[in-house]
Amino acid sequence: MENIEYVLPGDIEKRSFEIISRELEERNIVLPKDQELVTKRVIHTSADFDYAETMTYSEHAVEIAKELIRNGADIVTDTNMALAGINKKVLARYGGTAHCFMADEEVAKEAKERKVTRATVSMEKAAAIEKPVIFAIGNAPTALISLYELMEQTGFRPAFIIGVPVGFVNVVAAKELILKTDVPHIVNRGRKGGSNVAAAICNAILYQL
Amino acid sequence: MENIEYVLPGDIEKRSFEIISRELEERNIVLPKDQELVTKRVIHTSADFDYAETMTYSEHAVEIAKELIRNGADIVTDTNMALAGINKKVLARYGGTAHCFMADEEVAKEAKERKVTRATVSMEKAAAIEKPVIFAIGNAPTALISLYELMEQTGFRPAFIIGVPVGFVNVVAAKELILKTDVPHIVNRGRKGGSNVAAAICNAILYQL
Repeated sequence: MENIEYVLPGDIEKRSFEIISRELEERNIVLPKDQELVTKRVIHTSADFDYAETMTYSEHAVEIAKELIRNGADIVTDTNMALAGINKKVLARYGGTAHCFMADEEVAKEAKERKVTRATVSMEKAAAIEKPVIFAIGNAPTALISLYELMEQTGFRPAFIIGVPVGFVNVVAAKELILKTDVPHIVNRGRKGGSNVAAAICNAILYQL
Repeated sequence: MENIEYVLPGDIEKRSFEIISRELEERNIVLPKDQELVTKRVIHTSADFDYAETMTYSEHAVEIAKELIRNGADIVTDTNMALAGINKKVLARYGGTAHCFMADEEVAKEAKERKVTRATVSMEKAAAIEKPVIFAIGNAPTALISLYELMEQTGFRPAFIIGVPVGFVNVVAAKELILKTDVPHIVNRGRKGGSNVAAAICNAILYQL
């Protein structure tokens, strides 16, 4: 078949990252060394070079996230798609578990009664976990807004926030809220993001361990 | 909190689609009526208006996909992320099941022995399902290439192909292969796509039933 390049299955990812590196160079984009593997994996999962301009890291973010996972932190995400994408085997090797409470029946029931989103109830549930938690938000801006409110109102402080919800309503503003906090974070500024991006960021961190 | 717009949880999606419609208008893009809901849901899931230019539909594609699901077709996808994202409740209402064989141990074993991708083995397994199948490919170009080879070599004909793998190696060429066939399809031309996009397309079809 014409135009099909023969690449061994195990080499496809390597070849993809070579292409990404070359095209970043062609765009004169130099990613900071410690952020490089994470941002490149996000581009790999989206084929979208916009992320090279909008991915925003707090100081030493990747190193802090690695250390948290090494010490057994859990990951809480806001979609079952991200949960499916996160490499739970590697996480478990260090004692961590990945959770998503969004589809829990009790969460749905409570959200309906209180007229809030399921994301809000899920974040409250996650905040009650008695160990460090990395919040990986790929879908619901209300999850980020709820985390911010919990911090303001209860003094709760998440160990780490991956803030990459996608969309058109409150997404940009919710990310800016998190950028104002002193919580270690990786945030993609703007509208873009998603469950796939949240999972890619988690995996890029896990694969560096 | 400044900049946060108060929208009732149930209204967020509606409001998002209004924004998408308005911004498509501002870009002077008019989507064909029968493709509109699918392409808009893809933009909703990615916040990426590029899809308005690259989503490609065979004739009456959406109507054909709806009819297949109404008659109980299964969906086979190539990632557990897409599987997690597809609304399986609505699909089940019509007698369909969603599958992903990629993580099956026997698939991994056979792929290793034959030095092919797991996607190839998964597609062969899916082709053996004895009812109409919608293939929803969001990750592996080799899944599309394998489907094409099966068609050429065995006369197998998929009922429908959603071809939206993402990436840098063989992705563009694999999509072009499918566009050459007479199989009803929805393909996103170019590098972009993903599990989230595959799930969004499936759901946009399911929600129209």
